[in-house]
Amino acid sequence: MATKTSPLSGFPELLPAARSVERAVIASLSDTFELHGFANIETRAVEPVDVLLGKGETSKEVYLLERLQKEQGGSDAGVGLHFDLTVPFARYVLEHAGHLEFPFRRYQVQPAWRGERPQEGRYRQFTQADVDIVGKDVLPFHHDVEVMRVMVEALDALPIPALSFQFNNRKLIQGFYAGLGLPDVVAAIRVIDKLDKLPAEKVAELLVSDAGATPEQAQQCLDLATIRVADTSFVEQVRALGVSHPLLDEGLAELEAVVAGCSAGERRHVTVEANLRIARGLDYYTGTVVEIFMAGYERLKSVGGGGRYDALASDGRTTYPGVGVSFGVSRSIIPLLADGVLAGSRPVPSAVLVAVTDEDSRAASDAVAASLRARRVPCEVAASAQKFGKQIRYAERRGIPFVWFVQDDPDGGVSHQVKDIRSGEQVAADPAAWTPPTDDLRPQVVTKEHQ
Amino acid sequence: MATKTSPLSGFPELLPAARSVERAVIASLSDTFELHGFANIETRAVEPVDVLLGKGETSKEVYLLERLQKEQGGSDAGVGLHFDLTVPFARYVLEHAGHLEFPFRRYQVQPAWRGERPQEGRYRQFTQADVDIVGKDVLPFHHDVEVMRVMVEALDALPIPALSFQFNNRKLIQGFYAGLGLPDVVAAIRVIDKLDKLPAEKVAELLVSDAGATPEQAQQCLDLATIRVADTSFVEQVRALGVSHPLLDEGLAELEAVVAGCSAGERRHVTVEANLRIARGLDYYTGTVVEIFMAGYERLKSVGGGGRYDALASDGRTTYPGVGVSFGVSRSIIPLLADGVLAGSRPVPSAVLVAVTDEDSRAASDAVAASLRARRVPCEVAASAQKFGKQIRYAERRGIPFVWFVQDDPDGGVSHQVKDIRSGEQVAADPAAWTPPTDDLRPQVVTKEHQ
Repeated sequence: MATKTSPLSGFPELLPAARSVERAVIASLSDTFELHGFANIETRAVEPVDVLLGKGETSKEVYLLERLQKEQGGSDAGVGLHFDLTVPFARYVLEHAGHLEFPFRRYQVQPAWRGERPQEGRYRQFTQADVDIVGKDVLPFHHDVEVMRVMVEALDALPIPALSFQFNNRKLIQGFYAGLGLPDVVAAIRVIDKLDKLPAEKVAELLVSDAGATPEQAQQCLDLATIRVADTSFVEQVRALGVSHPLLDEGLAELEAVVAGCSAGERRHVTVEANLRIARGLDYYTGTVVEIFMAGYERLKSVGGGGRYDALASDGRTTYPGVGVSFGVSRSIIPLLADGVLAGSRPVPSAVLVAVTDEDSRAASDAVAASLRARRVPCEVAASAQKFGKQIRYAERRGIPFVWFVQDDPDGGVSHQVKDIRSGEQVAADPAAWTPPTDDLRPQVVTKEHQ
Repeated sequence: MATKTSPLSGFPELLPAARSVERAVIASLSDTFELHGFANIETRAVEPVDVLLGKGETSKEVYLLERLQKEQGGSDAGVGLHFDLTVPFARYVLEHAGHLEFPFRRYQVQPAWRGERPQEGRYRQFTQADVDIVGKDVLPFHHDVEVMRVMVEALDALPIPALSFQFNNRKLIQGFYAGLGLPDVVAAIRVIDKLDKLPAEKVAELLVSDAGATPEQAQQCLDLATIRVADTSFVEQVRALGVSHPLLDEGLAELEAVVAGCSAGERRHVTVEANLRIARGLDYYTGTVVEIFMAGYERLKSVGGGGRYDALASDGRTTYPGVGVSFGVSRSIIPLLADGVLAGSRPVPSAVLVAVTDEDSRAASDAVAASLRARRVPCEVAASAQKFGKQIRYAERRGIPFVWFVQDDPDGGVSHQVKDIRSGEQVAADPAAWTPPTDDLRPQVVTKEHQ
């Protein structure tokens, strides 16, 4: 049927062993989210174009859908593939609000699509994992701490390099700028967001030219933006800059609570920082903001991020504030797989290959397989009754650790033997009782130190 | 951000409790497939249009992708969303053949898209579960029996109404027609495929007018097509029609093996039949064919199907024969959810709501939740420190069965109590030891007899 291959740039596909790693990552994330009471939802892949463009800035990256043979005025006119999971979630909340209980806690792991230029970590189809809490009219601040902690725990459980959560707070920035008397706070935030790309003196110049700051104000903006600590000592450092404003007080208290709440407890490889230059470009954040970076992969920029939005959705009568954070599954995992930092231990679920002595006795091998499966041991029966050496190599090529032999005994019975093909050890075994070591039961994620 | 809702016909979305049912169905299917050694893969959502149109007939249903702001000659020109999982799988096999071991056993659970008119069980976006085995150059027939048995076992484990697997074999039909001396075997298969929609006498007329049959041959075609039995007695019934041909013999032997193999063992609600009118419209089937029907939902037509294709894919040098079967997850599950035959026991993963006495003691409630989660009990902490009666109703509305109370003792310590809000029973409990009954731990699939 298919007659030629067509690799498409920006649409990565995983081989089975790598896919088992991606599935393990998604299962681990889902497990943590559910332990915290977040319900999974799946939204349709398409949204009306006006919903997609409501978010602004990303319009050029949207893929529109068109029927190959359109009916005139078809109802699917004007739909496109979603480019993130936040826009469809906001629409889902509005569409189904009457059937949801608020605060509504959900997680979502799905692909999204952007027609941008592909590069490492940036794909045209990519999978994200989002976790959000949405309220109706109000959403208490403590949910900011909660949802960020959940993502810290979820990512801390993954077999990936060290991650840094870098937090800031929009109220803190805006309050500081307002207390400073900056004439255009929004323009100033846009300029400060360029600190990653431009030297500090250039940013100071832009603050003067584009945001109407005095040189002294510009310097204080830079002083604020260069505060970066792994504890709550940023509060004192900000206070020392001598600016005061009620919104600044609120932002400081919130950021302090988020940093303290996310730092509490033992962590394997996630660290938490206050980094006061983090702004996040998107205009709808109104409080907590976060970006997540992966050690050794700073070139990918952030592998996740999110924050508080006081108006995730609104239907005119009711406003739905939300707080959430997104993790780029494809963006982080695919480069780790490509670099060999992560690998799957084998490309097949089977822990056992049941050998076939000859085609006439295939049923005996099938019976052994059924017996193993009844005790939840994944296995397969050899495709053909080749010489045992060839069947062992068949297992070897698939990384299947055990081969099972069923042989007729001289006395008319049947004897069973199982061979660990790594050690060569072969022992008698009972198909109704034998179980492989736990580590061999399912494909494992193999990790290697990143060089 | 989002400001209006836009329900889209043909793009169904599930509320969280219903989604938990869909997830349970997919997890159960995946579990069976993996126990049989099938590896999961995920293919990209898009394929080049020429790959999509290679299959013929369905061209008008394809959704093309277009960039909202196209670059000239962009590399994503001419791609569309896949309309099944077979075409992308065939392309995946060709593209990655050098990295796969054959026979290659894979399953795939993903959405597909068709721009057809929506109706019950037919959606523009729908999820399918496919399981296939693909060989390189050759694929022994016993894999036909194997893959069909795997789907029988997988569907037998689902909490859905009774299912009927109806098998036939293309070789049997073609051999019978050839032995009969029909001049145009392909045309005759097309006509016989209309037996669902047209009365037998009309089909007989078409066999004469469109397939060049004599009235006697037409009658024998009808006699063959009306054979339908739940065992292997069809072999005798076909033989009694007095037609002979080597291909007929082969088809009879294969169908007998499939029906016998799939009938073996205890089944909960799956039955197996030979139904000699099943042809399946698609031209690429070359042996075993199957359609799956759900009791009480015959109006959906088949909820699954598949078969053997001797040339799933070919790159000119190598041909990849395959055998597989697909189950329509959306097609079957969404109508069952809509009819209340299936439901989720609750819309949230949480088994416990930890009440909050006052905002100052939220940390004590958080600590209880952490302790429960450490023992894998999904829970959430109340969103606000309302009166306990309100917090209990908060749990009730979400179907959370248990509410946990943390209260200061007169002696300065803390006491813990857990209330089953269904029975009203409240007992002292230790957060480091208490566990809910297993059935309450996770949302369950609730089934109701279909009326």
